[in-house]
Amino acid sequence: MKKVTIHDIARELNVTFSTVARALNDHPAISVATKEAVREVAKKLNYQQNKVASSLRSGRSNVIGVMVPNLAANFFNSTILGIEKVMNENGYSILLYQSGESFSHETKGIETFMQSRVEGIFASVAMETTDFSHYEDIKKNDIPLLLFDRAVEELGVPTVRIDDYRGGFLAAEHLIKHNCKNIVHISANLDVKSFRERLQGYKDALNHYNLPINEDLIFYGKPSIELGRRCIEQLYNTNEAFDGVFAFEDYTALGVMQQLKSHGVNVPEQVKVIGFANEAFGAYISPSLSTIDQQSVLMGEEVARLFLKLHKSQNFYTSIPEQIVLEPLLVERESSGLTVFINQSPISSTQ
Amino acid sequence: MKKVTIHDIARELNVTFSTVARALNDHPAISVATKEAVREVAKKLNYQQNKVASSLRSGRSNVIGVMVPNLAANFFNSTILGIEKVMNENGYSILLYQSGESFSHETKGIETFMQSRVEGIFASVAMETTDFSHYEDIKKNDIPLLLFDRAVEELGVPTVRIDDYRGGFLAAEHLIKHNCKNIVHISANLDVKSFRERLQGYKDALNHYNLPINEDLIFYGKPSIELGRRCIEQLYNTNEAFDGVFAFEDYTALGVMQQLKSHGVNVPEQVKVIGFANEAFGAYISPSLSTIDQQSVLMGEEVARLFLKLHKSQNFYTSIPEQIVLEPLLVERESSGLTVFINQSPISSTQ
Repeated sequence: MKKVTIHDIARELNVTFSTVARALNDHPAISVATKEAVREVAKKLNYQQNKVASSLRSGRSNVIGVMVPNLAANFFNSTILGIEKVMNENGYSILLYQSGESFSHETKGIETFMQSRVEGIFASVAMETTDFSHYEDIKKNDIPLLLFDRAVEELGVPTVRIDDYRGGFLAAEHLIKHNCKNIVHISANLDVKSFRERLQGYKDALNHYNLPINEDLIFYGKPSIELGRRCIEQLYNTNEAFDGVFAFEDYTALGVMQQLKSHGVNVPEQVKVIGFANEAFGAYISPSLSTIDQQSVLMGEEVARLFLKLHKSQNFYTSIPEQIVLEPLLVERESSGLTVFINQSPISSTQ
Repeated sequence: MKKVTIHDIARELNVTFSTVARALNDHPAISVATKEAVREVAKKLNYQQNKVASSLRSGRSNVIGVMVPNLAANFFNSTILGIEKVMNENGYSILLYQSGESFSHETKGIETFMQSRVEGIFASVAMETTDFSHYEDIKKNDIPLLLFDRAVEELGVPTVRIDDYRGGFLAAEHLIKHNCKNIVHISANLDVKSFRERLQGYKDALNHYNLPINEDLIFYGKPSIELGRRCIEQLYNTNEAFDGVFAFEDYTALGVMQQLKSHGVNVPEQVKVIGFANEAFGAYISPSLSTIDQQSVLMGEEVARLFLKLHKSQNFYTSIPEQIVLEPLLVERESSGLTVFINQSPISSTQ
């Protein structure tokens, strides 16, 4: 079957090629009656508009590219849900790309987004990335770029993130208020600003409540169950006393709980534990894991709304980049001492 | 700064526009020396090739669109990792779209992929979808379409899935071999072929081991923790005896375990539980959840390899569509009776 073209429609209506093309693109110079006639014939002939060509002309694709480090993380998943909700309501589609924390994948993904003619890019930067030239390219091409969660200030683009310092403070303060005196903190690569800030929040909370900072209780590693397990082993090997653990992310906290269990230590009676990120599994394990919630769905919605606002105003890169900072929320569960009630009778959290 | 065009390169080299264009596209009619000269000048002038225009000409974008119902599910996440691994190694980029099990989102996503000129589409169909015309459109446009996990036979395209019937049989057989006599099965919308097959596998295993099929022990609902909880409540309300539960997916199995716990029933001593899908949380909860693994990473790799093979042969839609069926794997954990050993001393699974 021969493909129907604009020429076929023009012939059928006895108008010029250009009239049909402009009618299909809703050009203001074409009358409503002509537009309707063109649409009717196009439908009758089963004409398929070449959307790539059409988006090349209009410069608008109604597609947003969203770059995330890791789709398996509950945090990024939920952020995407927030972005999709607001953007879909406004007629946009969302294409996703995961960098896997790799610089080269991230670069390739940004290239793919631009090749796909996305109308904007929302990104959370890979842990490996220290050269930001691929992000500079987005700006050079005048495509709106917004960063969320893992933001890079030097890029000078609008950002949405949570107050990680406040999150670190909240987590440590929560353990202090539950009578912990020797609080371990497990952190990671301090090149990542959010981890650095969580650590500073922890230290300032200890200072604020007149507790000494013991560097032997601060560990660094790659976020993983294994890291949590290893830190606890090391604490036992060096006979350091501790009664609370604040891990910078939930999987590490899970490793802490598993290793404490294998030593016959009861959580929360003997050691209290809190994580960060509110991963889905935290509510299901036993004892359930206290954590810091990063308001991920709201973060996604805020990124989307900020894009829509700035995109409308037409001066995306000319004004001072807006920065939205969200409040972290404390989620109290059993691992830091919450007693749960099931079927009206109170039971201890470790039964 | 004025944008450098092909004309600038042509002027610099004193050759025609068409020579430069063909050199940049590696046309066989152009000499190696000319191609090198063009590339050098292009680099010197900082020429940015318009990849959209170039992909319009070559018809190849090296981008694959992957459509999944839900990125939060461990199964789809892992399938994507498998796809990315093989496709990245072969120079392709992967753009993702999540349908959220919605027909309209799925349709929009397929449209977005085609608009982005993807070179192929891999999809797992949304639960809501019963009209497949958007998938027919992909075929009509001669873009390779492969389906994985949730396949639709009527579409007549290559597919990769697991043997769900065998998975259902394995799960029920495992409980039977652990001395369960009254095995509950929780299933869902039987329009979805894989759920129907898991149910049939369960029934055939009971038959095979001469156990009666009791329809009062078979439940249907929407996959969720809530569904599992509700089924157990109903069993207690009707005083049905049961000693094993096979849930068609892990979140439902989690609800089963939570509700049994709230009744003071020990898993696995009094009731044994097995799920399906090998979600990440299953290994972390206590007791850990036995389940059926769908070889998700391998499935992704197989989809990718099948695409590469068929795409190379140039007759994607002319041969009989290939169907790859993978074996499901039994994952034995504590919820069906496995005893765990921690630090050399055996402890019961519910301690």
